[in-house]
Amino acid sequence: MIAEIITIGDEILIGQIVDTNSAWIAQELNLIGIKIKQISSVSDDEQHIIKSIEEAKSRANLILITGGLGPTKDDLTKNTLCKYFNVSLKFDARAYKDVERLFKSRGREVTEINRKQAELPENCKPIYNAVGTAPGMWFEQEGKIIVSMPGVPHEMKEMMKNDVLKRLPNYFDAPVILHKTILTQGVGESFLSEMISNWEDELPNHIKLAYLPAPGVVRLRLSATGTDKSILTKEVDDLVIKLKEIAGKYIYGYDEDSLEKLVGELLLKRKQTLSLAESCSGGYISHLITSIPGSSAYYKGSIVAYDYEVKTKELGVKKETLEKHGAVSEKTVIEMAEGVKEKLNTDYSVACSGIAGPGGGTPDKPVGTVWIAVSMPGKTITKKFQLGDNRERVIRETSLHALNMLRKEMMKEF
Amino acid sequence: MIAEIITIGDEILIGQIVDTNSAWIAQELNLIGIKIKQISSVSDDEQHIIKSIEEAKSRANLILITGGLGPTKDDLTKNTLCKYFNVSLKFDARAYKDVERLFKSRGREVTEINRKQAELPENCKPIYNAVGTAPGMWFEQEGKIIVSMPGVPHEMKEMMKNDVLKRLPNYFDAPVILHKTILTQGVGESFLSEMISNWEDELPNHIKLAYLPAPGVVRLRLSATGTDKSILTKEVDDLVIKLKEIAGKYIYGYDEDSLEKLVGELLLKRKQTLSLAESCSGGYISHLITSIPGSSAYYKGSIVAYDYEVKTKELGVKKETLEKHGAVSEKTVIEMAEGVKEKLNTDYSVACSGIAGPGGGTPDKPVGTVWIAVSMPGKTITKKFQLGDNRERVIRETSLHALNMLRKEMMKEF
Repeated sequence: MIAEIITIGDEILIGQIVDTNSAWIAQELNLIGIKIKQISSVSDDEQHIIKSIEEAKSRANLILITGGLGPTKDDLTKNTLCKYFNVSLKFDARAYKDVERLFKSRGREVTEINRKQAELPENCKPIYNAVGTAPGMWFEQEGKIIVSMPGVPHEMKEMMKNDVLKRLPNYFDAPVILHKTILTQGVGESFLSEMISNWEDELPNHIKLAYLPAPGVVRLRLSATGTDKSILTKEVDDLVIKLKEIAGKYIYGYDEDSLEKLVGELLLKRKQTLSLAESCSGGYISHLITSIPGSSAYYKGSIVAYDYEVKTKELGVKKETLEKHGAVSEKTVIEMAEGVKEKLNTDYSVACSGIAGPGGGTPDKPVGTVWIAVSMPGKTITKKFQLGDNRERVIRETSLHALNMLRKEMMKEF
Repeated sequence: MIAEIITIGDEILIGQIVDTNSAWIAQELNLIGIKIKQISSVSDDEQHIIKSIEEAKSRANLILITGGLGPTKDDLTKNTLCKYFNVSLKFDARAYKDVERLFKSRGREVTEINRKQAELPENCKPIYNAVGTAPGMWFEQEGKIIVSMPGVPHEMKEMMKNDVLKRLPNYFDAPVILHKTILTQGVGESFLSEMISNWEDELPNHIKLAYLPAPGVVRLRLSATGTDKSILTKEVDDLVIKLKEIAGKYIYGYDEDSLEKLVGELLLKRKQTLSLAESCSGGYISHLITSIPGSSAYYKGSIVAYDYEVKTKELGVKKETLEKHGAVSEKTVIEMAEGVKEKLNTDYSVACSGIAGPGGGTPDKPVGTVWIAVSMPGKTITKKFQLGDNRERVIRETSLHALNMLRKEMMKEF
C-alpha cells in the first residue's frame, strides 16, 4: 500500500507552524509496512485542496489529510470534502458529546461554532475525537481511502492510534518490516559514522541504516524488510550485537527509550531518590525528569542556583571555592552535588555548572565549558565538557550528558 | 517570485525527523514577498531528487533544497547536483577552514570524511557555513535559482540569514508585504475567534488573518499586501488598536515577543530580581526564564519542590497547611512564593502547585487543577486554573500562565 500525506493550512506555507504531523504519520505508517510516496503542504484554498487530493489519488491508494478542521473561518477542509464528494453535512450526536465533555473539563460552555464541529459529511465514517472538538473522517471511494484529521498533533495522534492504524491492516497484505532504533549519546554523527563504517558497509541490501541526529543524541535506525519475521529479528539482533562491540560505550538505549525514562525506571526499581543542583542547565534537567509521569516517586527536587549567593547559601558551596576556582569548576560542582544530596536527603544527585553563552566566556573557560558531577552513596564523580557556542544546545547537551552520566553510574552499581 | 522547498532525506519519509526547516524558510521568504507554491519531501534517492528538482523548476523560479549534505553514506545531495548540472567537485580552501575551526572548538581532529565536505560542485557559488561543516551551494541556470543547504536547522538558518535572504531581493521586484503577529495567552482559539468575529469579518480583502495556535498560546497574524508601506502600516496599526479594545486582556505581546523575554526585559530595566518555587511545572518555568541570554542578571534561581519535605524544609511551607489544605491549594502556593522570595532574597517570586497527571487526581481536585501565586513587595496574588488532562500541556500552560501573571502584575506597578 502506498500513501501520501497532505497537510492543509496557509500557516505552513506562509508561516511559523512547524509540520510535526507528517513525520509522525510517516513513521507510524512505515512501521506497519506502508510506504510514503510524497508529503505535500498545500494552502487553505478549496481548489488547491481538491487538486492535491486528485493528484495524490493518482499515485497512492491511501491519502491522509491533516489540518483545516478547526472552528474558525480559515478552516475549509470539511466543507471542501463535502464539495469533493458532493454530499451534505449531518449532525452527529456522539461527536457533539465529545465537544461537550471537553468544554466541561475546562469549565466552559459549548459555543455555537463549536457545535458546528459535530456536523460531518454524510458519506464518512466518523473518527471520534477523545481529546479535542473536531472529529476526523474516513472516506472510501473507488478503492481508495481518504482520511481527514485535525492538525492539532495530540488529537491527530489519538485518532491514528485508536482508529486509523487499527483499521488499515484490513486493507492490504503487509510485508514484514522490522525497525530497531539504537540510541547513542556523547558522540557526533561524523565520528560515529567513521567508527562504524565497516559494519555499515557489510549491511545486507534488505537492511537499511538511517542516521537520525537530534541535539546531543544520534539515533541509528535499522529497517529490515522481508517475509519472515523471526529471520529478520535474528538478523537485526546480530547486527545490534556487533554494533555494541564497536560503539557500545555510546549506546544508552533502544527505540522509544529516553535518558530521563531509563534513569527514572532504575530509580523506581531500586526505590532510590534523586535531587539536582542546576546552574547552566537552568532547570532543564528537572524538566526532563518531571516530564515522566510518576516521577514524584523518586524525584525530590532541584535547586536551580543561577546566582552565586544561591550556590553558597542554599547548596553550601564554599565562598573560597567560588573565589579560587570560579563557579564553573570541578570543585564547585562537587560541592553543589554533595550539598543538594545532603540537603534534600536523596541517594543520588546531579549538579552542573557551565557557560551557556553567548556571553560570559573567557580564554580559560570559553563559552560551552561545562562541569558535571554525579554524587551517590560514598562517592562523587565529575566530568568536563566543551559543548560549543549555541546556548540552546549547551543547555540541552549538558542535560543529556548529566542524565547519561547518572545512568552509567547506576548501571555500574549492579 | 515563486519558490518551492524540497526537503531531502529518507528520515522524513520513513522516520522520526520533524521537518522544522520548511516552515521556517516559508516564513522568511514570505516576509520578503516570495510565495511558496509547494513544499515537498523526497527520499535520499538520486532519481527522485533529480525529478523533484525538474518538477519544481517547471512551477517556480526559486528552489530551496535542504538536507542530504551530511558526511555519511546516505547523504547524496551534493553528488546528485553534480550529476544534474554535469560538473565535477572542486576542493574549496575556505570551506575547509570552516570545517577545521568547528572541529577545533570541540577539541577534535578533522576526519577524512569531513575533509570531503569542503569539496563543492565547480559551477556553484559557495555559501559558507559559520556553524557547521557542510557548505551550502547557490546555482543559477536558465533564469532559475537553485540553492542547496544542510538539513541541520541552525546551519541552514545561518546561511539563509547571512547569505540567501540578502542575495534574493536583487532578483525580483518585491511587493510590499507587512506582517503583524499578535500574541495572546489565557484564551482558546474558539473563544478568541468568537470574541473577535465581527472584527475579523470587517478585514479588507488585502489583509488576511491566520490563527497560529500552540500549547497555551494563540498567535494571530495579520498579513497585508499592497504597494505603499506607510498606508499598509497605518491600516494594520488601526486594526491592532481595534483588536486591543476587544481582546486586550489576552494580548501580551507582538511578533517575536515571548513571555519569558518580556518578563526578563521588565526585570532588567527595573533592576529587580526573580525567584521561583515550582512544583507541577517541574523546572519548566526556570528553563523558559534561563533560555533568555543574560537572564543571570535578574534571575536568582528556582527551588523545584516535587516532594512534601522539600516544600516544608526548603520553602518553609507549614506542615499544617499541607495537612489541612493539601499541596495543591491556595495557601500552599502563597507560602511557597513567599518562602522562596524571602530565602533567595528577590523582589518577585512565582510559585505553582498542581496535578499534572495522568495520576493523582481526586473528585475535588481533578488532574489539571493548578494554583499559581505571584509574590511581590508588599503582596501576593493567586489564581486557580483547570488545564485539562494532558501532562505535557499542563506543564507548559502552567508555566505560561505563571509568566503572564507575573508580567501583568509588573505592568500594573508602573
